[in-house]
Amino acid sequence: MQKAVLLGGKRLRPCLALAACQAVGGNLEHALGAACAIEMVHAYSLVHDDLPAMDDDTMRRGRPTLHVVYGDALAILAGAGLLAEAFAMLASQPHGEESPELGARRLRVVQQIGMAVGAAGMVGGQAVDLECAGLVKRPDGCRLSLDEAGLRDMHARKTGVLLRASAVSGAIMAGGTPEQVAALDRYASELGVVFQIVDDILDVEGTCDVIGKTPGKDAAGGKLTHPALYGIERSRALAHEGTARAVAALETAGIEAWPLRELARWVLHRDC
Amino acid sequence: MQKAVLLGGKRLRPCLALAACQAVGGNLEHALGAACAIEMVHAYSLVHDDLPAMDDDTMRRGRPTLHVVYGDALAILAGAGLLAEAFAMLASQPHGEESPELGARRLRVVQQIGMAVGAAGMVGGQAVDLECAGLVKRPDGCRLSLDEAGLRDMHARKTGVLLRASAVSGAIMAGGTPEQVAALDRYASELGVVFQIVDDILDVEGTCDVIGKTPGKDAAGGKLTHPALYGIERSRALAHEGTARAVAALETAGIEAWPLRELARWVLHRDC
Repeated sequence: MQKAVLLGGKRLRPCLALAACQAVGGNLEHALGAACAIEMVHAYSLVHDDLPAMDDDTMRRGRPTLHVVYGDALAILAGAGLLAEAFAMLASQPHGEESPELGARRLRVVQQIGMAVGAAGMVGGQAVDLECAGLVKRPDGCRLSLDEAGLRDMHARKTGVLLRASAVSGAIMAGGTPEQVAALDRYASELGVVFQIVDDILDVEGTCDVIGKTPGKDAAGGKLTHPALYGIERSRALAHEGTARAVAALETAGIEAWPLRELARWVLHRDC
Repeated sequence: MQKAVLLGGKRLRPCLALAACQAVGGNLEHALGAACAIEMVHAYSLVHDDLPAMDDDTMRRGRPTLHVVYGDALAILAGAGLLAEAFAMLASQPHGEESPELGARRLRVVQQIGMAVGAAGMVGGQAVDLECAGLVKRPDGCRLSLDEAGLRDMHARKTGVLLRASAVSGAIMAGGTPEQVAALDRYASELGVVFQIVDDILDVEGTCDVIGKTPGKDAAGGKLTHPALYGIERSRALAHEGTARAVAALETAGIEAWPLRELARWVLHRDC
């Protein structure tokens, strides 16, 4: 569990949670538990997605994946343990007794993150992805074939919901208004799409050294990606348009938040 | 996920949560969410423990296990999905806005259940069990060998903690006093040991028809069990003594609770 969560990673989701908290004038201390819990949930999903029964990835962040080192059994347990400990941490009050209002916010965050991981979220999205790759038997015996809307929905569930939950959780812990929470949700939703497009492009263009995992794996596995659907140039344009919409969502709600703008730019221009 | 949680099962844990709630004079409605969530957590653990990488069980409740029917990938996802949805359900307020006091109780239950599943609980206990069975590589290359204390600790984590969390959660949702919560914790702790002893005996003496899973599997796998350590007769005596201590813990705290007494008797005398 330590190796899954402590050996690197971009920390995009906790940064997003803390930046969202700051953007609506909250106390960063109040969002720290949520930020850490979300990174643990993210680590859980990477460990399980890398399993031989799933994406069968042997490299992650430039190192052998957890199941390669410790076997499938411990990797499955470490993933589930991270998920459970994330919720235990979310519910804990690090500074002892706290106000009922903060407790109510914590409870809303538990629900947001539970739903982000569950059937309508990451777990469901990964199941659709595996059906597309032919790794899950369907009743009709055929591979699932997605159109553009289906691809968008799958990525929204696999990547988007946890990014949205990160921003929303930060805003909730800060005591943001419903309008502020909604604006940060829209921002993170656009950010999630951009993140996935850039991920797809890096899989085509990156090297193992830079991206820290096996490149070309999506194409080799017959996975539906943005470059495969639209070509590289149109994919890049879509990523720029999404970034602009993400920042516009903040401006419309009157949220002046340079860290969130910089985060969006980093997601767009990242090379790892 | 539906098949894992809806196709039978003894429903011991939700019964325990509701009986504990009733025993301290609580409103059963307030404990229903926790009771359902705990059964979903239990279902998650069965699905994952049955996986080929873990205990490799092909029968459960008289039916083929989930991974046999749907493959390992969907079984892993269904288990994690049940775990996440359990926390989402725990955090949800089924009747809309509720009092801050009820919200604070829910948050305590989230923490109890998160810790019950996590590293100090079920996930850690299963890892120790797999080390004993030689399914997990240890740095020294040897199998882990447990003494009696180690066996007790492993079962406390694999089975005991979730039973304790069930009783404690019911009592918390009822607004029980710290003394009542502690008494129900002791009761459930004893119940957990009895449950495991009876499980071990059934594995030796039961048939596949009655216990709904493959009998003799523990012995064949070289697992350390109560009958293997103490023999059948001494194991039975230990189960009776534990049941008496469980009921005594309630009486000492002045909790007159026939359903909990009947539950303890059922656990002792069950044949499935």
